[in-house]
Amino acid sequence: MKTFNPFDPAAFRTALRDFMDRESLLPAGAAVLVAVSGGADSVALAHLLHTSGITIEIAHCNFRLRGKESDRDEVFVQKFAAQLGVPFHVTHFDTNGYASSSRIAIQEAARLLRYGWLEELRTRLGISVLATAHQMQDSVETLWMNLSKGTGISGLHGILPKQGALVRPLLFATREDVAAYMAAEQLAFVEDSSNASDKYTRNYFRHHVLPPLREAYPDIVRQTGVSIERFREAEMLYRQAVEEYRKKLVEQKGEEYFIPVLKLKQVKPLATIAYELFKPFGCNTHLAAQAADLLDSMPGKFVTTATHRIVRDRKWLIITPLQADISAHFLIEEGQREIQIPGFRISIRIAKNDGRGIPADGGTAYINLAEIRFPLMVRKWKQGDYCYPLGLNKKKKLSRLFIDQKLSLPAKEKVWVLESDKRIAWVMGIRLDHRFRVTEHTEQMLVIKMDSVS
Amino acid sequence: MKTFNPFDPAAFRTALRDFMDRESLLPAGAAVLVAVSGGADSVALAHLLHTSGITIEIAHCNFRLRGKESDRDEVFVQKFAAQLGVPFHVTHFDTNGYASSSRIAIQEAARLLRYGWLEELRTRLGISVLATAHQMQDSVETLWMNLSKGTGISGLHGILPKQGALVRPLLFATREDVAAYMAAEQLAFVEDSSNASDKYTRNYFRHHVLPPLREAYPDIVRQTGVSIERFREAEMLYRQAVEEYRKKLVEQKGEEYFIPVLKLKQVKPLATIAYELFKPFGCNTHLAAQAADLLDSMPGKFVTTATHRIVRDRKWLIITPLQADISAHFLIEEGQREIQIPGFRISIRIAKNDGRGIPADGGTAYINLAEIRFPLMVRKWKQGDYCYPLGLNKKKKLSRLFIDQKLSLPAKEKVWVLESDKRIAWVMGIRLDHRFRVTEHTEQMLVIKMDSVS
Repeated sequence: MKTFNPFDPAAFRTALRDFMDRESLLPAGAAVLVAVSGGADSVALAHLLHTSGITIEIAHCNFRLRGKESDRDEVFVQKFAAQLGVPFHVTHFDTNGYASSSRIAIQEAARLLRYGWLEELRTRLGISVLATAHQMQDSVETLWMNLSKGTGISGLHGILPKQGALVRPLLFATREDVAAYMAAEQLAFVEDSSNASDKYTRNYFRHHVLPPLREAYPDIVRQTGVSIERFREAEMLYRQAVEEYRKKLVEQKGEEYFIPVLKLKQVKPLATIAYELFKPFGCNTHLAAQAADLLDSMPGKFVTTATHRIVRDRKWLIITPLQADISAHFLIEEGQREIQIPGFRISIRIAKNDGRGIPADGGTAYINLAEIRFPLMVRKWKQGDYCYPLGLNKKKKLSRLFIDQKLSLPAKEKVWVLESDKRIAWVMGIRLDHRFRVTEHTEQMLVIKMDSVS
Repeated sequence: MKTFNPFDPAAFRTALRDFMDRESLLPAGAAVLVAVSGGADSVALAHLLHTSGITIEIAHCNFRLRGKESDRDEVFVQKFAAQLGVPFHVTHFDTNGYASSSRIAIQEAARLLRYGWLEELRTRLGISVLATAHQMQDSVETLWMNLSKGTGISGLHGILPKQGALVRPLLFATREDVAAYMAAEQLAFVEDSSNASDKYTRNYFRHHVLPPLREAYPDIVRQTGVSIERFREAEMLYRQAVEEYRKKLVEQKGEEYFIPVLKLKQVKPLATIAYELFKPFGCNTHLAAQAADLLDSMPGKFVTTATHRIVRDRKWLIITPLQADISAHFLIEEGQREIQIPGFRISIRIAKNDGRGIPADGGTAYINLAEIRFPLMVRKWKQGDYCYPLGLNKKKKLSRLFIDQKLSLPAKEKVWVLESDKRIAWVMGIRLDHRFRVTEHTEQMLVIKMDSVS
């Protein structure tokens, strides 16, 4: 990470451009939808992009969590957009209502509503990139929080600069850098209320853990920021090494996978490689350790996961998909609230469409109830299946969709679909069908949620 | 890491045995020299090993830093050894005097004196393993401290269970586990004063950073302990991936190394691989980045490190050892305090031998002044060189010594020797010569210290 003078706006813009180039955040000439809460970070980001000659539109979520203050923020951002002369988009959420009806935490509700609406808006506007204003300290806090809970190497990469259409161009800058830019450009801002996710823990870190750390290590945020870049590269090398082992050790024959016992036994580090090799077959750390223990077991012993059986043969570990997985069909009757599928549980509820956004969490689908005919069917996908992917509204084979999404073979084998009257309404956890989407005309929604039980 | 009931001494011993087996800490039947300060950790460790049927001897350092308390600790440990019926060894240091005469911090002085004496004692007793009582929290603190300063993946492995003859069998247990064992076995202990290294920062962490973290994450130490095991395995995979790239990309021809420009350019992640590939040729992060920039430079551009020149050729980066490195000889005259060598600086001073131990820091040599004849000569080692390695006191070729020490080729190329009257007194940074060692009869010592300048 190169240093720059944050009080020099031109230098700041150069640093922004360098970072975006290096991380390939922006296709040439692309417009950016910027999520602006009105806080310093998001105002700075929108201003930086705009004054860098990039076409932006501004989106603001009013979560209605702080009464008049929320409305004040909305007006502030609207005026800011007008000053820049860029389009302004706003939505209002009944965050409390959504949280209590969905029985989730306020923070989680705000996050779902926010990203759901932003993503829907971005698609509707035909803008290729959505930007949020996470900066270095946010990323550093994420790393420290992951580490406090316990994590593997993937918990060390902090907040990623790019995830699909979502980018974070401000990760190269610290909170203090942003403050310097705001001062240099004499930009006003309001208190940030949108970064509500993980509010409790993150604020606890910010106010009770970071200050004593800063006292001993004044440069800790930037140093951890530099470390994050190194960890991210280390993680790439880790993944490359894992894939080498996978290529060498896992042999596919039809629906079964074979791993040679003697060769796997010699691998160092065994625990991590066993975890990575068995993970696609439904293993968590605990099950992967059990599967690794098969190496020292008698032939015939086996470990069963939600999706596969791993059997100790004389010379091989043989991994077979569970039969239930291949042929089973599960019906959801009208009024049914829950159903158990091998590997996960599905909960079903009906909710009023309050027009406040379509959360885009992969594990939850919001379906237009009017399009549904009960009983619904849950089954494994099969060759020949097709749907109308949300946003595309064009018929597409699932096999093709999976290629686009770069799903691995084991991942593909785990995909289930939700069918209504022989039409696929949801490629579960992957993509909603366009025909079943919630629109402004939708009155009632079917909310379907997958919960892993492995 | 398996859980166990720390209040059950038998279960604790089983957990100790499991950990030692898994990390190969103890050759079968080997005796262990245990460093015991008298604190809970070291008393527990000695007791655990002894009651597990392992032959131990106890070593205690009296640093004379806390007056009567220091002597009280010594008596306490002596009695404890007598109770166990195991040999007791003690030494007394003038830590303050050593620190001020060497102009180093008290903590650093204590660490040097301690490990120097322990290692010397271990060798003298012919015991194969030296054990210290670092437990999980020490290791976790090390990780957090490294992270606060900024680090790469190697800063995440905490305190290693094994480094040469030095082992830490108690890393599987937390401070609370140890306290439970002490209570269950009704063992007495004194306040620990020997873990003096990094005292300030470590204590700051312990008293100001850990408590607020513990409040939010009560299980943070054990969780980080588990994470450390995962990071250690991730680091192994990282190293394997790096070595793959080295094999693929670095070709040796005589004294030169060739790296193909186009192939290296395509590597992802480039920054980390460039750092790892260039590091053996005298590059730190900064120089490695400069060397990587050569990929986009005109042929003829080059980067010079302390030991090598990296030249941009048309199709290759060519790495050549610096001429000075190969042929230069540097003389140290009597009274000379400092000398500049390509890649490092040497400082020379004479000190009274106070008989309080021979610090074994690789970068510093303590030489019996009576054996020296000025001028000394500093030169690169060459084929045919031999010495009498410390502890061995038998003639050995340097080429053979390097094989035993598993030095890489680039590492070997960087080795210098200090000669007195055509006899090698010190294979610099590697091993002192036995003939030049400081003994109890030594009156004055020549203290020679290497400081890297790269």
